[in-house]
Amino acid sequence: MAGPRDEIEALIALMSRLPGLGPRSARRAVLHMLTRREGLMAPLARAMGEVAAHARECSVCGNIGTAEICEICADPRRATGEICVVESVADLWAMERGQAFKGRYHVLGGTLSALDSIGPEELGIPKLIDRTGAEGVTEVILALNATIEGQTTAHYIAEALEAQEINVSTLAQGVPIGGELDYLDDGTIGAALRARRKF
Amino acid sequence: MAGPRDEIEALIALMSRLPGLGPRSARRAVLHMLTRREGLMAPLARAMGEVAAHARECSVCGNIGTAEICEICADPRRATGEICVVESVADLWAMERGQAFKGRYHVLGGTLSALDSIGPEELGIPKLIDRTGAEGVTEVILALNATIEGQTTAHYIAEALEAQEINVSTLAQGVPIGGELDYLDDGTIGAALRARRKF
Ligand SMILES: [Zn+2]
Ligand SMILES: [Zn+2]
Repeated sequence: MAGPRDEIEALIALMSRLPGLGPRSARRAVLHMLTRREGLMAPLARAMGEVAAHARECSVCGNIGTAEICEICADPRRATGEICVVESVADLWAMERGQAFKGRYHVLGGTLSALDSIGPEELGIPKLIDRTGAEGVTEVILALNATIEGQTTAHYIAEALEAQEINVSTLAQGVPIGGELDYLDDGTIGAALRARRKF
Repeated sequence: MAGPRDEIEALIALMSRLPGLGPRSARRAVLHMLTRREGLMAPLARAMGEVAAHARECSVCGNIGTAEICEICADPRRATGEICVVESVADLWAMERGQAFKGRYHVLGGTLSALDSIGPEELGIPKLIDRTGAEGVTEVILALNATIEGQTTAHYIAEALEAQEINVSTLAQGVPIGGELDYLDDGTIGAALRARRKF
């Protein structure tokens, strides 16, 4: 089955590069689209092409949007003097879904890694330091992942901000809502115990 | 987060209509693409748009390709006098992956259903009857799903072909290769027992 099928096979190969889709599920997704060419496949191709053409990193915070400066940075109500530092745009979106943070962000785009030659410059940490002065920031919240790399990077940023009069905080560690102790790793249980509060 | 994010949210909504992707995994897939706009998102959009524009049902068998007549129907080596009847293009592709069938196909596009007003005409069964004469078909293999709907449809087709001198066969039922009896439903075990052969 070569020839006409090649275009379709090429599409399946591209689809299988998406997270959560293996070769089998990519094929199933393409077959699904093939029987809905007008209703799903063509609109999806258009939407994807437009986002690919228009999407860009916000020049201030690194969030992805379709303008030079993202919605959040452009919103004067979010000039709260708080910057939340996250590793990725995915983490920024997760924070936004939490609807608890009203300030602005700084997206690192990774964590410090000597092995991959990712230093403070690559993560825009000097730019973050500049922002704290320029935007009158009073608090920097380090919302990095609870991994060794995330915490190493958090420590580096906290030290870099030490010279300034800025509160540096980090997310609380503990048992997630709905979390069953039995399924939590020991580190989380230990952290939750140490941070215990009066009931 | 409205405005620029709307385009991205619309894309996530479309992606979440693909089988195997829910809202969460669709968002993750879009974020993955957003950080690979040149390398993955734009090529994927192009490939998808091209397939959406070029893909069409084969006018003979119903397979999906990019030509009026599909690769299989156009291949003279596959004029073996055998037609394999399948419910969907997905099943046709599955048969092809098996690499055991060398003839041609007839894709029904569903099963008979009084409830959904799907009759023989909607499934192209009269056309299948015509093909058996025109293509000198000696055997029709009913490779329909082992569901009530699939088997009802298979019986209907077998009866419709009765007047012609054509062998009508169906796929063997039994234990799949690598299948553990413990995980098989009772019907499969019963069918495998009844169809047992000398070891
Ligand atoms: Zn921004
Ligand atoms: Zn065909």
